[in-house]
Amino acid sequence: MAFSAFRFGPIAIPLEQVFLISKQSYALVNLKPVRPGHVLVATRRPVARFNDLTQSEVLDLFTQAQRVSKVVERVTAAESLTLCIQDGDKAGQSVPHVHLHVIPRFEGDFATNDDIYDALAHQPRVDNHERTPRSPDDMASEALRLREEIGSQWNEIL
Amino acid sequence: MAFSAFRFGPIAIPLEQVFLISKQSYALVNLKPVRPGHVLVATRRPVARFNDLTQSEVLDLFTQAQRVSKVVERVTAAESLTLCIQDGDKAGQSVPHVHLHVIPRFEGDFATNDDIYDALAHQPRVDNHERTPRSPDDMASEALRLREEIGSQWNEIL
Repeated sequence: MAFSAFRFGPIAIPLEQVFLISKQSYALVNLKPVRPGHVLVATRRPVARFNDLTQSEVLDLFTQAQRVSKVVERVTAAESLTLCIQDGDKAGQSVPHVHLHVIPRFEGDFATNDDIYDALAHQPRVDNHERTPRSPDDMASEALRLREEIGSQWNEIL
Repeated sequence: MAFSAFRFGPIAIPLEQVFLISKQSYALVNLKPVRPGHVLVATRRPVARFNDLTQSEVLDLFTQAQRVSKVVERVTAAESLTLCIQDGDKAGQSVPHVHLHVIPRFEGDFATNDDIYDALAHQPRVDNHERTPRSPDDMASEALRLREEIGSQWNEIL
């Protein structure tokens, strides 16, 4: 089975932006990270709400999130992480597809500790036209670094 | 096996404040909710970081969180939820014990959508002396309501 892209709500995410693939989840770099190292872990099945996940998807999503959290902390030398699901549009979810934000945190990284969430809220929605995207090269090179760090076994999956 | 209290970091949570107990997780009402209906789901084993959870704890925590999210939405008539783990003290974690915040969200509930996180950040830490706790009666009555709604099988566990 081969993929040229992963579905993220209505968006096609090119493989170059993906750094981990498991049976039911994948991890991707972010078009508009609130901080360097801010990445996403999503289900492979396009499911809008957390409560719609099967037990098997829940296990896979969050065990893969553990792998991702470990590598994000190592690569960024972060001391903590913000792990967050905006579950539904009233919670700021911009893409109707379950995804966990993994955001490295540091002492004093925001003026008050959780200004990070304002940053998260105010980043342009990835699916609107106001975004100023990072360059594809930037995103691909971050994904490559993370892919190497995490030791993803692409051959097993692709 | 009987419990008179659950451990939440260094804090003893009385059973009256607990509304769901599974093999490896429990759900509790909040001393200082940022909004009515804001509750917590924690591991029973006192573990500080997300990455320290076993696979079995991961599955249990988040499948119980699904049950909790469903009942919180129903009871509060919320249309969305904020689901958040402050993973480490630099991320605002006040109690070194893995816990997921489940916060009901509504259209226009905060001036900008994610001011909620400021509220989350600025609530007094539950383990310091500045807190103005809700009354034990309030907390017990909320827990009782949720316990009934969720259909927790106490007898199987206690």
